[in-house]
Amino acid sequence: MSNPATSSPAQIGVTGLAVMGRNLARNLARHGYTVAVHNRTSARTRALVEEFGHEGDFVPAETPEEFVAALERPRRLVIMVKAGGPTDAVIEEFAPLLDEGDIVVDGGNAHFADTRRRERRLRERGIHFVGTGISGGEEGALNGPSIMPGGSEEAHAALRPLLESIAAKAADGTPCTTHVGPDGAGHFVKMVHNGIEYADMQLIAEAYDLLRTVAGYEPARIAEVFRTWNTGRLDSYLIEITAEVLAHTDAATGRPFVDVVADRAEQKGTGRWTVQTALELGVPVSGIAEAVFARSLSGHAALREAAAELPGPRRQVLDEREAARFADQVEQALYASKVTSYAQGWNMMQAASEEYGWGIDLGAVAAIWRGGCIIRAAFLDRVRAAFAADPTLPTLLADAEFAKEIGEAQPAWRAVVATAVRHGVPVPGFSAALASYDALRAERLPAALTQAQRDYFGAHTYRRTDRAGSYHTLWSGDRSEVSADI
Amino acid sequence: MSNPATSSPAQIGVTGLAVMGRNLARNLARHGYTVAVHNRTSARTRALVEEFGHEGDFVPAETPEEFVAALERPRRLVIMVKAGGPTDAVIEEFAPLLDEGDIVVDGGNAHFADTRRRERRLRERGIHFVGTGISGGEEGALNGPSIMPGGSEEAHAALRPLLESIAAKAADGTPCTTHVGPDGAGHFVKMVHNGIEYADMQLIAEAYDLLRTVAGYEPARIAEVFRTWNTGRLDSYLIEITAEVLAHTDAATGRPFVDVVADRAEQKGTGRWTVQTALELGVPVSGIAEAVFARSLSGHAALREAAAELPGPRRQVLDEREAARFADQVEQALYASKVTSYAQGWNMMQAASEEYGWGIDLGAVAAIWRGGCIIRAAFLDRVRAAFAADPTLPTLLADAEFAKEIGEAQPAWRAVVATAVRHGVPVPGFSAALASYDALRAERLPAALTQAQRDYFGAHTYRRTDRAGSYHTLWSGDRSEVSADI
Repeated sequence: MSNPATSSPAQIGVTGLAVMGRNLARNLARHGYTVAVHNRTSARTRALVEEFGHEGDFVPAETPEEFVAALERPRRLVIMVKAGGPTDAVIEEFAPLLDEGDIVVDGGNAHFADTRRRERRLRERGIHFVGTGISGGEEGALNGPSIMPGGSEEAHAALRPLLESIAAKAADGTPCTTHVGPDGAGHFVKMVHNGIEYADMQLIAEAYDLLRTVAGYEPARIAEVFRTWNTGRLDSYLIEITAEVLAHTDAATGRPFVDVVADRAEQKGTGRWTVQTALELGVPVSGIAEAVFARSLSGHAALREAAAELPGPRRQVLDEREAARFADQVEQALYASKVTSYAQGWNMMQAASEEYGWGIDLGAVAAIWRGGCIIRAAFLDRVRAAFAADPTLPTLLADAEFAKEIGEAQPAWRAVVATAVRHGVPVPGFSAALASYDALRAERLPAALTQAQRDYFGAHTYRRTDRAGSYHTLWSGDRSEVSADI
Repeated sequence: MSNPATSSPAQIGVTGLAVMGRNLARNLARHGYTVAVHNRTSARTRALVEEFGHEGDFVPAETPEEFVAALERPRRLVIMVKAGGPTDAVIEEFAPLLDEGDIVVDGGNAHFADTRRRERRLRERGIHFVGTGISGGEEGALNGPSIMPGGSEEAHAALRPLLESIAAKAADGTPCTTHVGPDGAGHFVKMVHNGIEYADMQLIAEAYDLLRTVAGYEPARIAEVFRTWNTGRLDSYLIEITAEVLAHTDAATGRPFVDVVADRAEQKGTGRWTVQTALELGVPVSGIAEAVFARSLSGHAALREAAAELPGPRRQVLDEREAARFADQVEQALYASKVTSYAQGWNMMQAASEEYGWGIDLGAVAAIWRGGCIIRAAFLDRVRAAFAADPTLPTLLADAEFAKEIGEAQPAWRAVVATAVRHGVPVPGFSAALASYDALRAERLPAALTQAQRDYFGAHTYRRTDRAGSYHTLWSGDRSEVSADI
């Protein structure tokens, strides 16, 4: 531990020392960096130094001025406060104290549109602003998160050694961080990460529900099934912790833990942002949308109570042999649905990259999610490889390997959805993914009828399959066709 | 036709004389009102009077000042210009010319949040602002639209006789207009109307696709099926025009018209708004979301081309007897999905009414959609009756009559979704609706697992089924449970 008067200048500073900021500061200090630390109420600053001062070189600062003075130039300053108003307040507090060329990193969960706005404003003052997604929660912040910085190339060059040393490492040793792209690209990609996480969790929940309700397995047995899946292509952190949760017994009642937990899933909002943004971009993300809706629905107690008596099919549990076969089909349905929902997430990043001119390397994003974050998985190395092989791949589903796997999985996928539907088990995620798959590969979509209806009631015109141009049929006249080109 | 110098003052004025404004002005004049008409470029004003002056009493105005001077007090002034910037521009142009107590009606397709903002701003200047949904397109504007005014009670009282005389009439003679609620309530309800319209059209498209692909019917035959459906509980404008479109033959090729229309459905944005707003309100609207996504997907040519070779099941067409049975099941699936998606739309209005304190009469909304608008249908009288019987009905599905019908339809509904899935026909709308139905009636949802996972990786806590309070399990410790209440 050091103090501002005597120590060498700090290489980086962290302001906002709630658990995420504190752990990030510790992670930096543990990697040999001198870290200036500051918090609005300095009790937290003192507590950090008292408790963790032995882990490395901290420079505690009582005031913003002291904090800024402790940093070497160009300054690297990480803001770890609540997204929204508090982030703006801290930026406004610090910006006047900074010099041209200094770098402000926002490591909070900002909306990418806010990050774009802040970056523009600070750029006008000659200050670099780096909106950075940080995934992995408290644990990740301390021991190695996945880090998704946006902002300028120049700022990234100055941050890169620090970020690479504190980031998680993939199985091949590569640090889980890359320069995602300009301005809001980092926070955008973090948002999509969270959206994909929602979809993943919903698909896992449906797989569990089917094994429980249709196969008739107890949670402990389902934990075994997930443990087995975790040795194969589904190998991932979320599958691993699913097994842990399902194997857990509630001490108070002796019942399976999952059975004593209220069936209301909460959300903090990034899933909702993802879907709202996808709608803006015109990208279908039905897997994420259904996951967000499923959480909302679970919390609508009055609605669920009112609907509790609605009729459904009589529940029947499969016999032991059928159940084993069904469990294998569920693995295939889960995998195929997962690939489809990841494909949607990547399409969204592709669309945003074009829309905002971010030039996102889609394979690199997969690479940095291989470790540190909630959706970390062996699988992501294959996503990386798919985009490395063809950076302009229009959809993950078109990658030869994934296409082959899904081709093999699709009969089981269909069987699982059909079974769920007949048994009255809700599988919004599985069925949305399958519908998306079938719509994408359809030679003709009934969208032709939809567009014809639009022409009928609103003169919205249509295009033809056999020649160029826009047309309108005089529906309330003699039903002849007229050109609608101006 | 009159001119400002000699005529009695106009009872109402319309500015913005594109087709919607022109038709609304004609509708008013045809009902005996003296209508001041104004357009930015006065060629349009002159054209209206030249072409339709014989229909009633128009007072053409060249300038905003002339227009305002032509109106009796308190002035009733309807703005019919493009939503967004143009609406703000016109408001800013006219507001300084108005007096306290005057009433500005915005009949465009404004976002309800803009309407709330405009209403607040004009209220500060003592001017009533009435954001009004108008549905029914050009045809409706002329011959009787469904009219959904928001704004103050006082303003509505002054508009009511005019609106009631020009609105469509339901089968029982009631005018299709009501005071929806304060400020943005009218435009909100119009937005939900459009969202429901998206869902309806998607469900119809899926029904058509199934009859075509699985039953193997030709468009002309499917037109017959829809015509038959239109004599039953599905009786509606959209089903009627579906039959018209499907029966239509393309003159140029002699082929069914629907087969020469490009299968790309476009959208103008209100469906997207509906889903984005529902996400904000925490209301699941999966039927509308899937409809919006289906339209987007249909337009992604590169994506569809890349996915065109993805494997699916071999297509098989049912034999004649099976096909007839299947067609009957499709009717049941369509009906059940429709009720479910309407239930979602009404939940959204319920949630917004609470959120904004609008006090929307949910039955009255159904009543005014019985005529004039795109989703007009006999069915809506039953929705009206359901909310009249129980204004606090938490979901349409809980209404005894609808519950009974869906209970009877659900085996067929399940059979149709299962068949679609096995045949590789995309049914995102049918399956989302069924998943929503099954989730709502589920005794236990796997959301318990989702929330347990959130506690595992993010210490987000959970509630228990057996006692109050929030809890956290020390997952990386000894896995004991601690209270998370502060």
